[in-house]
Amino acid sequence: MWDLIPALDCSQLLSLCPSQCKPLLFPITTPDPWVDPPKRTMSDQAFVTLATNDSYAKGAMVLGQSLRNHHTTRKLVALIGPHVAEPCRDALRSIFDEVCVVDVMDSGDAAHLAMMKRPDLGVTFTKLHCWRLTQYSKCVFMDADTLVLSNIDELFEREELSAAPDPGWPDCFNSGVFVFRPSNETHEKLLTFCGENGSFDGGDQGVLNSFFNTWATADISKHLPFIYNLSSIAIYSYLPAFKQYGHGVKVVHFLGKVKPWNYSYDAQKGEVKGQSDPCQLHPDYLLMWWQLYAKAVVPLLQKAYGDTPFSSGFVDDKLHEDVTAQTASSPPPPPPPQVTSAERKQRWEEGQIDYLGADSFDNIERKLNSFLK
Amino acid sequence: MWDLIPALDCSQLLSLCPSQCKPLLFPITTPDPWVDPPKRTMSDQAFVTLATNDSYAKGAMVLGQSLRNHHTTRKLVALIGPHVAEPCRDALRSIFDEVCVVDVMDSGDAAHLAMMKRPDLGVTFTKLHCWRLTQYSKCVFMDADTLVLSNIDELFEREELSAAPDPGWPDCFNSGVFVFRPSNETHEKLLTFCGENGSFDGGDQGVLNSFFNTWATADISKHLPFIYNLSSIAIYSYLPAFKQYGHGVKVVHFLGKVKPWNYSYDAQKGEVKGQSDPCQLHPDYLLMWWQLYAKAVVPLLQKAYGDTPFSSGFVDDKLHEDVTAQTASSPPPPPPPQVTSAERKQRWEEGQIDYLGADSFDNIERKLNSFLK
Repeated sequence: MWDLIPALDCSQLLSLCPSQCKPLLFPITTPDPWVDPPKRTMSDQAFVTLATNDSYAKGAMVLGQSLRNHHTTRKLVALIGPHVAEPCRDALRSIFDEVCVVDVMDSGDAAHLAMMKRPDLGVTFTKLHCWRLTQYSKCVFMDADTLVLSNIDELFEREELSAAPDPGWPDCFNSGVFVFRPSNETHEKLLTFCGENGSFDGGDQGVLNSFFNTWATADISKHLPFIYNLSSIAIYSYLPAFKQYGHGVKVVHFLGKVKPWNYSYDAQKGEVKGQSDPCQLHPDYLLMWWQLYAKAVVPLLQKAYGDTPFSSGFVDDKLHEDVTAQTASSPPPPPPPQVTSAERKQRWEEGQIDYLGADSFDNIERKLNSFLK
Repeated sequence: MWDLIPALDCSQLLSLCPSQCKPLLFPITTPDPWVDPPKRTMSDQAFVTLATNDSYAKGAMVLGQSLRNHHTTRKLVALIGPHVAEPCRDALRSIFDEVCVVDVMDSGDAAHLAMMKRPDLGVTFTKLHCWRLTQYSKCVFMDADTLVLSNIDELFEREELSAAPDPGWPDCFNSGVFVFRPSNETHEKLLTFCGENGSFDGGDQGVLNSFFNTWATADISKHLPFIYNLSSIAIYSYLPAFKQYGHGVKVVHFLGKVKPWNYSYDAQKGEVKGQSDPCQLHPDYLLMWWQLYAKAVVPLLQKAYGDTPFSSGFVDDKLHEDVTAQTASSPPPPPPPQVTSAERKQRWEEGQIDYLGADSFDNIERKLNSFLK
């Protein structure tokens, strides 16, 4: 699972990180601390994400592009695992300012030793690596399955460790979006903690909540509003609250097993095509993800892959299989039976979603608009 | 739905409240501010609950008894609607220090006027009435579907409005447990607010979150730890966190449509019998509720009802129907098909719980104990 490559320590790895300046809509000018103090911190602050495989890399691209589209003035950094394919790295480099390969197994330092003790926490150690980005004074980490809906640069006014509550157990923060201060000392402490205590949930959220264990009780300013990390699951668990506060949502987090990139997309019709797996992703935000992916990310992947086939996720993806043609040759499906609202709710909750009928995006959008009016 | 009885204002109603001192395990002595300052505030602080019908009255009795069992030194107050039967009121009076009938429709004051504007918010107005309990300097409101697992008198160290996050939308507090300061002025403001703005969720939680709208952002000391209002739903949404923090649970909240009193109980076997309705109540806490109900509440109801039949909820309740005999005369059910762990989880989540087989209390308890070890 882990490649054997020459052992480098973390700072060596960071020095090897491919870095590329991305043309910004609002280009960062050379800072002048006397004339323009507010901009002084921009280049030493960054949004950071993580992709350990090509699928998550697509998520990272959409996230990065969504930050660009909302005119962030901060740098964008992607940490990637050693298994991300070269064309994906190229595409990432055209969105992110820095793309850093992190291979904990090859870092030959404390991370490596901790990893030896807890090999089950591979991805967690890779994520914790973000504390090594000491070229930045402050960062906001965002999981690759998040999507930004408006400018969120104000998050840099917060201190470490700021995060939004997790709807599952709200005295824990969700580690999908958090503000932190890179520090080698903190990184070392986290590694030691992780090696000694493991993670109560088997992932980074357990480790970080145990390490920053005063989050629930110490300082309200470290509680990011929930709209900075809205899990789409929460929409259905308390719909009236979503109706009341949903207008302000700034970051959507596609929590759960099924991710946006596990669906497919009909680019002609602009429709997301479902899977049979249970899912609780919000169709509105799912469509936004795919629209951004189709418009801004696929062209980058096409350029990076050149003549090599790759999976775009489009249903009419000629490079793999023509699902459209397949559908056209099949006999038309029988009309769906009429179901009551309660039955539809139950089916939805069981993941049996009628994507093309009653639960089609158009119908849901109409319903949601009526809620949010 | 509302009885027509002579119009009285709230203070008149309060003066008519049947009040009865309950023998305490730790009797409250006459306070002496110079000799014994820590006890000085005990008699002017109270736990308050609300029951609008006989079912919720049973919940209130179990809650009150759980507070007594854990030796609270504060007063216990039950607000009841006009439809609670006289024997239930008698039983409540033997647990609570005060039992106050609240009939908003007959209060003839601002509450009545607000109620005229928003007749849909009847129970909410009844709950808001707790702010009129100005004979107390500070109170803790607890919904009748909560159960106390340890002494929680430390909650009186908190200020208005302290509450725990709601797992559905964690920037809202859950209004099932909250600390407040009775005040006629606050009550009036709440009524005006309620009449003008209604409630975004149709209940008191929407009103209170809109009124105390800085809860999420202003003061961390007003965030009660989640263990003071643990919704049993949250256990399954983030099981590792329950495993990590579940030991400390102090208050369980039976959120959702199906309440503990909607089940039945086999007192001989000490087993809770399920319903076919979907439910997410935790079997461990559900059993605790029924054990307390069977031991401490049923004898009070038997005394209060005398020869009049009442529904105890026991499966061998001879006064209504003998479910045991009915079952005995039926042919034995076919053996249940073997299901995988994933299938069981799905069925559980769909409310199809095998109460007598794989999901029996014994099995679940064994499983939970293995988690919590």
